Amino acid sequence: MRSIPVVSELMFCLIPSCVLAKHHNQKLRFDKYGRFKILQVADMHYANGKNTLCLNVLPSQNASCTDLNTTAFIQRMIHAEKPNLIVFTGDNIFGFDSLDSAKSLDAAFAPAIASNIPWVAVLGNHDQEGSLSREGVMKHIVGMKNTLSKLNPTEAHIIDGFGNYNLKVGGVKGTSFANKSVLNLYFLDSGDYSKVLPILGYDWIKPSQQFWFQRTSAKLQREYKKGPVPQKEPAPGLAYFHIPLPEYASFDSSNFTGVKLEGNGSAGISSASVNSGFFTTLVGAGDVKAVFTGHDHINDFCGKLTGINLCYAGGFGYHAYGKAGWSRRARVVVASLEKTVKGSWGNVKSIKTWKRLDDQRLTRIDAEVLWSKNSGA
Amino acid sequence: MRSIPVVSELMFCLIPSCVLAKHHNQKLRFDKYGRFKILQVADMHYANGKNTLCLNVLPSQNASCTDLNTTAFIQRMIHAEKPNLIVFTGDNIFGFDSLDSAKSLDAAFAPAIASNIPWVAVLGNHDQEGSLSREGVMKHIVGMKNTLSKLNPTEAHIIDGFGNYNLKVGGVKGTSFANKSVLNLYFLDSGDYSKVLPILGYDWIKPSQQFWFQRTSAKLQREYKKGPVPQKEPAPGLAYFHIPLPEYASFDSSNFTGVKLEGNGSAGISSASVNSGFFTTLVGAGDVKAVFTGHDHINDFCGKLTGINLCYAGGFGYHAYGKAGWSRRARVVVASLEKTVKGSWGNVKSIKTWKRLDDQRLTRIDAEVLWSKNSGA
Repeated sequence: MRSIPVVSELMFCLIPSCVLAKHHNQKLRFDKYGRFKILQVADMHYANGKNTLCLNVLPSQNASCTDLNTTAFIQRMIHAEKPNLIVFTGDNIFGFDSLDSAKSLDAAFAPAIASNIPWVAVLGNHDQEGSLSREGVMKHIVGMKNTLSKLNPTEAHIIDGFGNYNLKVGGVKGTSFANKSVLNLYFLDSGDYSKVLPILGYDWIKPSQQFWFQRTSAKLQREYKKGPVPQKEPAPGLAYFHIPLPEYASFDSSNFTGVKLEGNGSAGISSASVNSGFFTTLVGAGDVKAVFTGHDHINDFCGKLTGINLCYAGGFGYHAYGKAGWSRRARVVVASLEKTVKGSWGNVKSIKTWKRLDDQRLTRIDAEVLWSKNSGA
Repeated sequence: MRSIPVVSELMFCLIPSCVLAKHHNQKLRFDKYGRFKILQVADMHYANGKNTLCLNVLPSQNASCTDLNTTAFIQRMIHAEKPNLIVFTGDNIFGFDSLDSAKSLDAAFAPAIASNIPWVAVLGNHDQEGSLSREGVMKHIVGMKNTLSKLNPTEAHIIDGFGNYNLKVGGVKGTSFANKSVLNLYFLDSGDYSKVLPILGYDWIKPSQQFWFQRTSAKLQREYKKGPVPQKEPAPGLAYFHIPLPEYASFDSSNFTGVKLEGNGSAGISSASVNSGFFTTLVGAGDVKAVFTGHDHINDFCGKLTGINLCYAGGFGYHAYGKAGWSRRARVVVASLEKTVKGSWGNVKSIKTWKRLDDQRLTRIDAEVLWSKNSGA
């Protein structure tokens, strides 16, 4: 394992998105190069820093490996990719081993905060196992520096879970798309464990959340189709949450990019044991082009079903189970804008993704186009 | 085919439920024998009465068989079972062949109206194919005599479809359960066809409807657990709609009662091609013990999954496809109350079902207990 570099805030304030992070309510927007890049960090499983050892690493790594390796990996990823937004998709902390959930959260998100890049998080199934409840964890997150996370949408009077919200990403400043949300990000709480007997296993996204998502998507689509520059097609959307949907089991190596190394359950997918219909709701809404989850640390694939990419990030954290010799990893997504005939920036032309491994060179793997405006998919 | 008996209103006004039908807003309640009986009529496919011929009947029946045979079957069923409520689960009319949807609806429901028994209906996928839209059909139904059907719940501001509503069934008059809903009936619009490309096939129950159902169920459970006579367990619920859920494909002859004669699709079930999660929502709510649909005319089974019975009624109407020599049929459900220690009537003890065939003797088949208070299921 490598030594942990010290990250200076100053270094990151040279990158374009830095200015956006100054205020919570400032809008996300595409940069002057017509790009918006998201770094997804899945399953940090952070506990107590240097006192918390790594799981499933090679014998040669074992002695010195702690939560600080997770910290170092975030720092290196931020430095290498300079994302416009960092998304933590749950199991941010491993509550069961944490001595103090608030401290674990502070330490886990410290590199994101230090970077001055806007960041958000959703809950996994382990975040609430320590000294804070799910509501407590999410409230703590919402109060942290530079985060755009929200506890829940104010417009929904009743909603299950904590950490359901959406973010708009505006077009390039000074263009006619500057005040339109050309990319929509949805964040949902996929819960922890079933509270409903006799259903066992993981939780699912509830009707209240789906109804909120559906109405939000419809509202965003209505706005997008109005002036200025009325659009015919909805702006693409991306959805982030922790537990994969049952439809993740639809793929095998013949139709996904990446790997499925999980062996638990015949399909190697730890979704809820029941289908709560969110995939159908996503297809029905029509704007979401890709879903990004974590939860299954040694699955890292993307597969496309009914026009929607279902992607894992692959496990990131060192105190999370993994596979010795199989590098911890992170997923990057870049949306790129179209150049208009007048040479300005238009709406989203394509969405690409790749992963990086936590090896010497942060090796970039599995680059692929998830969605392209003119492909008809 | 038999001759069609003339039904007099008077005859039916001798039965206990008759008095209930006088006013739309009068509550449904269990009779003095502690029973509440529901007759389910699925897929009448009514068109133009005596000018509309039957489908799939034996050559010997062919010449004289019309929609009036459907009428006669309803009359015979009502006379034989004297239900407290009649539920029509969609494809009430076959809009495509109807010359006037309003007239077809009037003729289709005429025997129910004449009986003075309260009745309700939901929409199928064929009701809107004539001169009225889905909203138009449901509005027409709601305006008819003796029906307790509603267009949509007033408390839900946004809901998909037409004909989503619930009915409470009170305990026996004069008992301490008289003002409690001891049996809850849910009616939903399962739509017609997918409006979402690339999903083909039948429609599904949307998040807005599921959210309404979930809130309604929760509210009813809260009320039931309060005084007078606070209850620990929720009152059992029954859900009626047209298109079966994908989970209907979970059964075979080894674990269902009835038959599956449909051959379209490998599973012999014409549900939506996607899972919209309503089964999960039903399990989550915890009160619904059985779901009753139509749509697949030559399936008539009940199977139990995760504590919930999934039942077909079997095809009722003569202008609907069927199977020559395989009798048209209807499903009956009876909920029975428990006798309290004081000799009064308490809450629901059991829910039984059977079917009757439209043969000479209205043969009763497939009687089974769907739910029993003390079975733990």
